[in-house]
Amino acid sequence: MIKSKKKAVVLLSGGLDSAVALYAAKAMGYKVHCLSFEYGQRHEKELRSAKKIARCSSSPWMLARFSLPWKGSSLIDKNMQVPAKGDFLKSIPTTYVPGRNIIFLSFAASFAERINAEAVFIGANEIDFSGYPDCRQGFLKTFQTALNQGTKQGVEGKKIKICYPLVKKNKAQIIKMAKRLKVPLELTWSCYHGKAKPCGICDSCRLRELGFKAAKMKDPAL
Amino acid sequence: MIKSKKKAVVLLSGGLDSAVALYAAKAMGYKVHCLSFEYGQRHEKELRSAKKIARCSSSPWMLARFSLPWKGSSLIDKNMQVPAKGDFLKSIPTTYVPGRNIIFLSFAASFAERINAEAVFIGANEIDFSGYPDCRQGFLKTFQTALNQGTKQGVEGKKIKICYPLVKKNKAQIIKMAKRLKVPLELTWSCYHGKAKPCGICDSCRLRELGFKAAKMKDPAL
Repeated sequence: MIKSKKKAVVLLSGGLDSAVALYAAKAMGYKVHCLSFEYGQRHEKELRSAKKIARCSSSPWMLARFSLPWKGSSLIDKNMQVPAKGDFLKSIPTTYVPGRNIIFLSFAASFAERINAEAVFIGANEIDFSGYPDCRQGFLKTFQTALNQGTKQGVEGKKIKICYPLVKKNKAQIIKMAKRLKVPLELTWSCYHGKAKPCGICDSCRLRELGFKAAKMKDPAL
Repeated sequence: MIKSKKKAVVLLSGGLDSAVALYAAKAMGYKVHCLSFEYGQRHEKELRSAKKIARCSSSPWMLARFSLPWKGSSLIDKNMQVPAKGDFLKSIPTTYVPGRNIIFLSFAASFAERINAEAVFIGANEIDFSGYPDCRQGFLKTFQTALNQGTKQGVEGKKIKICYPLVKKNKAQIIKMAKRLKVPLELTWSCYHGKAKPCGICDSCRLRELGFKAAKMKDPAL
């Protein structure tokens, strides 16, 4: 009898970090189900990357949609400006979407419960990041506890684990890990603008560029 | 100078409990912002009730939409049957939507952060309920801790409070509370089927009927 593989839901934005999280989950032996979101993001283009990365990793891909009619972030409100060369290490920038990872993780938990997955992977990172509070380990740990109290799966003893393999790594370490795991980095999309080419000046582009520089590698997506 | 009222987001489904939660929030002096969801629920009709109740209470009403493509509940999957006269006190019924309150609360937190609200009200109840794990106080408390670690508002010291004024009350007590608070019970909709009249046999109808019976009151919505 073939033992069925343990399952994981991976939050896949189409960016670098979530792609590495996906390949890390696969390397840990999980059968991965990718989950992406359309929520009116400026860089909806990332979804094309997410779909390609999922296909490249031979994992099924699921898209959920939601609206945030109250907006409140330059990432979803086209009347607001995405900061260019902002001081991304000193304060939380306007690209912060209130509660975004909390919402993402809630959907992932619902999906995980539905397919009997035992883990949810998120590429959250609190080292080279924009200061978003929902990327921090402390929050992720407490959220896991809440999930296991608030889901049928959790209360019945089949705990859901939130895995955040990148949370304490810097961007260069993540990029080296990507190389080791053979992540198709050329398919990833990080830029907050959904234009033909990455802008090179938004926080996301700059963090990526600095990471490749520190890892002494060339960005294959450029 | 008129001191501006403290704000709260109230999760308003259109049912009895959430309407009472709304009026409880108002009685506690909050300026209430109602939040309802369209998520492919069978009884979408409840949204009409939600809108009317919000208007009746002179509170603004916001509707957010989301999809749960993995379904997994008879409340959103029309190929599944809503249990009739199910044994709702012994096991979690198929109307349980995986992670639903977790998703609702995540959206509410995002909205609360956007409008600088300090509280989120939910009509969750763990006495006369269908056994949904995300209606329990333990979960709600941990979730509040997670929110305050994972939101900008939380980490900057403006804590969000999750309020669940009905969690330990039985249905009869909730109905008496509704009367005291002058909740327009005639506008509420509880039935899981979105037909012209309440079916009278789904868990939600039966819990409501038993509650009115125990409170020795007539249901004004019938």
